[in-house]
Amino acid sequence: MALAINCDMGESFGLYKMGDDEGIMPYITVANVACGFHASDPVVMHKTVRLSKESGVKVGAHPSLPDLQGFGRREMKLDPGELTDQLIYQIGALKGFLEVEGMKLNHIKPHGSLYGMAARDEQTANAVADAAQTFDVPLFGMAGTLHEDVYRARGIEFVSEFYADLDYGREGQLIITREHAAVEPKAAAERVLRAVEDGKVKSVDGNDVAVRAESICVHSDTPNAVDVAAAIRDAVAKYLD
Amino acid sequence: MALAINCDMGESFGLYKMGDDEGIMPYITVANVACGFHASDPVVMHKTVRLSKESGVKVGAHPSLPDLQGFGRREMKLDPGELTDQLIYQIGALKGFLEVEGMKLNHIKPHGSLYGMAARDEQTANAVADAAQTFDVPLFGMAGTLHEDVYRARGIEFVSEFYADLDYGREGQLIITREHAAVEPKAAAERVLRAVEDGKVKSVDGNDVAVRAESICVHSDTPNAVDVAAAIRDAVAKYLD
Amino acid sequence: MALAINCDMGESFGLYKMGDDEGIMPYITVANVACGFHASDPVVMHKTVRLSKESGVKVGAHPSLPDLQGFGRREMKLDPGELTDQLIYQIGALKGFLEVEGMKLNHIKPHGSLYGMAARDEQTANAVADAAQTFDVPLFGMAGTLHEDVYRARGIEFVSEFYADLDYGREGQLIITREHAAVEPKAAAERVLRAVEDGKVKSVDGNDVAVRAESICVHSDTPNAVDVAAAIRDAVAKYLD
Amino acid sequence: MALAINCDMGESFGLYKMGDDEGIMPYITVANVACGFHASDPVVMHKTVRLSKESGVKVGAHPSLPDLQGFGRREMKLDPGELTDQLIYQIGALKGFLEVEGMKLNHIKPHGSLYGMAARDEQTANAVADAAQTFDVPLFGMAGTLHEDVYRARGIEFVSEFYADLDYGREGQLIITREHAAVEPKAAAERVLRAVEDGKVKSVDGNDVAVRAESICVHSDTPNAVDVAAAIRDAVAKYLD
Repeated sequence: MALAINCDMGESFGLYKMGDDEGIMPYITVANVACGFHASDPVVMHKTVRLSKESGVKVGAHPSLPDLQGFGRREMKLDPGELTDQLIYQIGALKGFLEVEGMKLNHIKPHGSLYGMAARDEQTANAVADAAQTFDVPLFGMAGTLHEDVYRARGIEFVSEFYADLDYGREGQLIITREHAAVEPKAAAERVLRAVEDGKVKSVDGNDVAVRAESICVHSDTPNAVDVAAAIRDAVAKYLD
Repeated sequence: MALAINCDMGESFGLYKMGDDEGIMPYITVANVACGFHASDPVVMHKTVRLSKESGVKVGAHPSLPDLQGFGRREMKLDPGELTDQLIYQIGALKGFLEVEGMKLNHIKPHGSLYGMAARDEQTANAVADAAQTFDVPLFGMAGTLHEDVYRARGIEFVSEFYADLDYGREGQLIITREHAAVEPKAAAERVLRAVEDGKVKSVDGNDVAVRAESICVHSDTPNAVDVAAAIRDAVAKYLD
Repeated sequence: MALAINCDMGESFGLYKMGDDEGIMPYITVANVACGFHASDPVVMHKTVRLSKESGVKVGAHPSLPDLQGFGRREMKLDPGELTDQLIYQIGALKGFLEVEGMKLNHIKPHGSLYGMAARDEQTANAVADAAQTFDVPLFGMAGTLHEDVYRARGIEFVSEFYADLDYGREGQLIITREHAAVEPKAAAERVLRAVEDGKVKSVDGNDVAVRAESICVHSDTPNAVDVAAAIRDAVAKYLD
Repeated sequence: MALAINCDMGESFGLYKMGDDEGIMPYITVANVACGFHASDPVVMHKTVRLSKESGVKVGAHPSLPDLQGFGRREMKLDPGELTDQLIYQIGALKGFLEVEGMKLNHIKPHGSLYGMAARDEQTANAVADAAQTFDVPLFGMAGTLHEDVYRARGIEFVSEFYADLDYGREGQLIITREHAAVEPKAAAERVLRAVEDGKVKSVDGNDVAVRAESICVHSDTPNAVDVAAAIRDAVAKYLD
């Protein structure tokens, strides 16, 4: 499988702006498009899908817990069936815009707290898997966590993300921060290339840890996100589709 | 084209109940399913689509202005493109549940204020038509009003509704009331049969006015809605699909 | 302190009805009024405050986690300061209507999941206490649980509720159910009187457990809620204010 | 009455930022604080009230139609009583935070579409007046429009705003734009001073029109808003409270 570069996109809402979608779009191959539950609205979704199409970027769904005020970053306890229905609703809504633009759904990547909950809670992972099976698309996630096992056990294609702008801990675990600090583009690009070619990254403790980079995730809200994305794109160009 | 009996369905929300969907479903052929903007939520939508399927009832979208608190009955001014995107979002979300259940979208019927605005405002009618063309399905509406002209001019199939439980004025205009009073089932059934067979209904002023009944609309919130639906179904059974 | 009879009130939303407020109001002395986050809207709140005033019923705030779709019954993780601000917003909004009607805020009773979380989680209980101290009113709660300790330690008046229509377990713990079954009015009234006079209730296991009944809570969504409330009111009339 | 400088404040929402509140606060005397219906949330409201207090800035309510997605800029038709209740809810919520911080409500300034509707529709103006009378505070508005007459006729104090960064038409009418262009700080300050001292402003057609400047409104979303506010503050310092 070819390498992908993905980025969360379409996270503006009404007059509120979030992320430089136009700036980053040229450097990615896959967009995770917000579906209105943690960010976005119908106008933003349509615009984002259209922009992706014009840029030759594939579109996946980036559904969330229903929590616009908390940007999908506050944990909520939903019944599993209820959670699956929340996902179907959001993914269906995105597919509406894909249908308008003549595009196909590429994948699903749960957002924020939902992503974290799926990575460590079997019931949540299965609720996400139920939605993915309905639409018959791959799920993006963190290799080596519980959701990889759950998705694979059910025959769902799993795409392992490598985070270009986040640190990894001694055991290879991702260190998630609320704010994303600026990273040096050249260093980020070299780090990504090493992850892709050698499957290794230096942890915050200085040891090498094994990683699997099938899709490189860049964030659009790091201060110099466009420069970072450009440098990474340049470094891994030959591995892209 | 065969006659249809349609009813607004799936208008409960969370713990809040609205309408006797289970009671009415056996007597209708087409359900207009709420899409979460004036009523319904993902769990209710899924349940309603599943119930429709089990009952052999076709499913259309019943999208609304974004106004849950006002049940979609408060007029709002949206830009036309913004309105179309709001509709695509809702219809797409419903199609998500149809995809899960292996069903097709049958039609679109705008809800509440949006229905009324489309019937008298060209810009609104065109915004609705844009959504319908995207999904290539018929639009339900009131014959003889502006939206019929707009939809037909654009080559969209128009299905004329006859309201079983509302009064018609001297000029044939529908008299919309906030609360729906109980109607006598036998009288309602006879009135419907006359509309279907003779294209006539007696107005509140006592004169006969011409109507076109391609789909009979029954309301689920009239006090004796199930009895009325049953009587109508019985009366027009031979004209149904 | 005189005995009170309290009931959750004002839980309708837009066209959606919940509970028979008019029916129950004559039999209670204190209303816990929903503040728009799990139920209610500004029109319903005003109407409920006005109805309380006309009935000589005191009004307390019944704030919730921000979750209208889940009726405040889905747990959410909020930062403590964020939670306190959510409560201040809701209580302030209710006080707006009290100011219109010339009434005072009587107490605060957290709703649903928030009530349960406060009863077992110290951080949540303190966040609730922060809001109560701001407005300088008592908090309603379950005697013998963590929130009683937290509230009292901070000098906040604590009013112990006895649930007229819920069962108690072997250790005196409340058995919370999603649906409230009908209870026999006379039996409920006798049970309440025993709780008030003797501080005892028979548990589901048949043993007597100690309870403290400073306010009797009745639910408006038990099928025969009005009859139950009337019987209880009659039984404990002499202990009321 | 002393001159005031007012600015719409607290329009961020969750992670979404809007306006440079910290930058502008030192230069204004009155903040119009959003109440959660077009912008803001409980955390933002509390933070904004606290910041106002620290800056010695008075706080007024800036309530809106219930339309977060449209930032309160889409017209909606509400019944007058329903609208008043929507306002009481929002103003009450703001007063909750004022009570926490030991502050008083200074005034009410309707936001966006509601402001425009009140300026030209008598029913809307009266619904706004009903809320203002409840809380016994002045209303901010545009001199010479319908809402001034309605408010004054009911004995409500009316504070006439002069817009520092918007153009005026030949007849003295305000020219409202969706985006606010940068204005030259020195020129804006001179224009404001002339409005305050001479009651005149040059219209876009070049003629002088009469204006009444009791409060200078600056916008926080003009590109150089802080510089403009600083220049204006400096120019009219002697007229401030």
